[in-house]
Amino acid sequence: MKESFRLQSVQTPIIPVVGELIRQHPGTISLGQGVVWYPPPPEAFDRIGDMLADASLHKYQAVYGIPALLELIEAKLRQENGIELNGSRIVVTAGGNMAFINALLAVADAGDEVILQTPYYFNHEMAITMANCNPVLVPTDGNYQLQPQRIAEAITERTRAIVTISPNNPTGAVYPESALREVNELCRQRGIYHIHDEAYEYFTYGDARNFSPGSIVGANEHTISLYSLSKAYGFASWRIGFMVIPEHLFSAVNKIQDTILICPPVASQLAAAGAMKVGAEYCRQKVRELAEVRQLVLTELEQLKDVAVIPPSDGAFYFFLKLNSQLPPLALVERLVKEHRVAAIPGSAFGIEGCYLRVAYGALQRETVTEGVGRLVKGIKTILS
Amino acid sequence: MKESFRLQSVQTPIIPVVGELIRQHPGTISLGQGVVWYPPPPEAFDRIGDMLADASLHKYQAVYGIPALLELIEAKLRQENGIELNGSRIVVTAGGNMAFINALLAVADAGDEVILQTPYYFNHEMAITMANCNPVLVPTDGNYQLQPQRIAEAITERTRAIVTISPNNPTGAVYPESALREVNELCRQRGIYHIHDEAYEYFTYGDARNFSPGSIVGANEHTISLYSLSKAYGFASWRIGFMVIPEHLFSAVNKIQDTILICPPVASQLAAAGAMKVGAEYCRQKVRELAEVRQLVLTELEQLKDVAVIPPSDGAFYFFLKLNSQLPPLALVERLVKEHRVAAIPGSAFGIEGCYLRVAYGALQRETVTEGVGRLVKGIKTILS
Repeated sequence: MKESFRLQSVQTPIIPVVGELIRQHPGTISLGQGVVWYPPPPEAFDRIGDMLADASLHKYQAVYGIPALLELIEAKLRQENGIELNGSRIVVTAGGNMAFINALLAVADAGDEVILQTPYYFNHEMAITMANCNPVLVPTDGNYQLQPQRIAEAITERTRAIVTISPNNPTGAVYPESALREVNELCRQRGIYHIHDEAYEYFTYGDARNFSPGSIVGANEHTISLYSLSKAYGFASWRIGFMVIPEHLFSAVNKIQDTILICPPVASQLAAAGAMKVGAEYCRQKVRELAEVRQLVLTELEQLKDVAVIPPSDGAFYFFLKLNSQLPPLALVERLVKEHRVAAIPGSAFGIEGCYLRVAYGALQRETVTEGVGRLVKGIKTILS
Repeated sequence: MKESFRLQSVQTPIIPVVGELIRQHPGTISLGQGVVWYPPPPEAFDRIGDMLADASLHKYQAVYGIPALLELIEAKLRQENGIELNGSRIVVTAGGNMAFINALLAVADAGDEVILQTPYYFNHEMAITMANCNPVLVPTDGNYQLQPQRIAEAITERTRAIVTISPNNPTGAVYPESALREVNELCRQRGIYHIHDEAYEYFTYGDARNFSPGSIVGANEHTISLYSLSKAYGFASWRIGFMVIPEHLFSAVNKIQDTILICPPVASQLAAAGAMKVGAEYCRQKVRELAEVRQLVLTELEQLKDVAVIPPSDGAFYFFLKLNSQLPPLALVERLVKEHRVAAIPGSAFGIEGCYLRVAYGALQRETVTEGVGRLVKGIKTILS
């Protein structure tokens, strides 16, 4: 009696491993979690009361989302992303991960290939493996930017989709419009899907701008855009994301979500509608505050320039450090926690070889960030010296 | 550009199809929905306020559930189901369907076989097909009871699990302890899993009693028990279920749920904890009221005895009628809606040939049930005469 082979091939989630390490070492500051420090806007909770007033809201609702939320999403996509729903549909999901697995199962059969950029977001690779598909890994360049030529070379008869994430988890890289257009056009030419994850769309700094490939004229037939309220609206535990899919996949995605979930949790959808009614300015204000934190982190990290390469990161709330060390990154993280009471996520979790670390600063505020990154810098210097 | 082959093989969810038919014909009474008429206990909402008071609750929580809910579930399993967690673990899920897909992916590889009893619960069959496994269908007997000998004969080298549901959706049959013990023992002997769905555990009538195979001594290694708050606690839209799994599958199930969901929605988990603190007596009181509704339905349905077989149903809130008719059941349902303003679910959705109908009475109260079932009886008599 044992687990399936497919599960044996799926990597162990790293966040709980690092979380356990942190619990065993009280006082550790975590630069690990992919979350923000702030809660949703208070208005998010205004509509939860509807559940008390209307008993019918406790019954199953539409697989693809409640009308009140769908309308707000449609307006947001038009205004912020330049995405018109001509030939596309919105499906609300229980978080961004579910949007990805919905997309994957809808377009890829067992044995099919899906192209990921490395370092990848681990849950994407896990989903592909779990679905008996094959992740094909294409490295990003030294600045964690897309390499469209190498992506094109990786396409085979079995390729069903190319996945991009911008702003990127785990690197913080923001892909320029030109690169995303190139990948999207490649998908169109080769008859494969472009699955683009914009969970961090509001998290850009300086001159970086988010670009939505779903807004490209004629892209709607082959583009799947994924969104999440988890980061921007401080909504992680509520599990609400959404996806924009070609009309011809609507039936397939509904079958999948009906089977996995039936419908997204309605209380969470009401909260999401409350938050989105407040609107993106709530998120942008928080990102402006986060920009100052990011600057503090960057200043601290610059002290590592003799032992680490720190490529530009103009988005999300991550830096992805390449350390001049032969240490396995998980061993490094263990020493950082045990000896310096600071945690980050080992790069090995993101499918990249070498001593890399993902440093997340979204959950920190001014006060904690200086202490946390200070410990990290001191720890790395000490361990690598 | 089209959907994957695996999705083309998955049946179209029937509930939205019938739902659309109902919307097109205002005034239709639905005997279709697998939900109850009542809301959760008001105490379920007491703890939602915790979300406002504690910002950390908006961050991701443990993949397998929050401690407050896990503790209540552990006590419930011990007291109500006779299940002790020796060598087993609880995983909270976003509903019973997710519990099933978690179990399926954890134990079965592409090409493996999973045995379902017909008529089956459609989402189980859809999940198996979607996961590239093969559903092997074993018919129940004339009373919709298990046929252990036929189940045993259906086991092959590729069989990974036998699925049972009691009280049953769609038939309302309650399997006696002896039959469930026989299937569970068969699984033990053949080294396969027994996946047993108890979503309707409180919904038994007369002398019928729910039995949990997970309580059998020595069963914990090969038994996966699935539960849901959706029916019993009027909790459908909140999406909370849970599963009891062998310890050796805990890592696999965590990988799956991390990939699909990250964690069950925390507001829903707090509401579930509030509801479970009130406890099963809330559900049992509602089931006692439902028993009277059931009696009314049964009395009405007996008028159909010349044109239909109505096997005993001592559980859930379904009757599964076999009509003496050559009509395709969906065509019959369309005529019932259009000509008689009453809807039920065609048996074809549950993988059974012939003119069957699932009649659900959980969403009805005394006032509506007489009118609804009256229309059904009159409609069937008229159409079949």
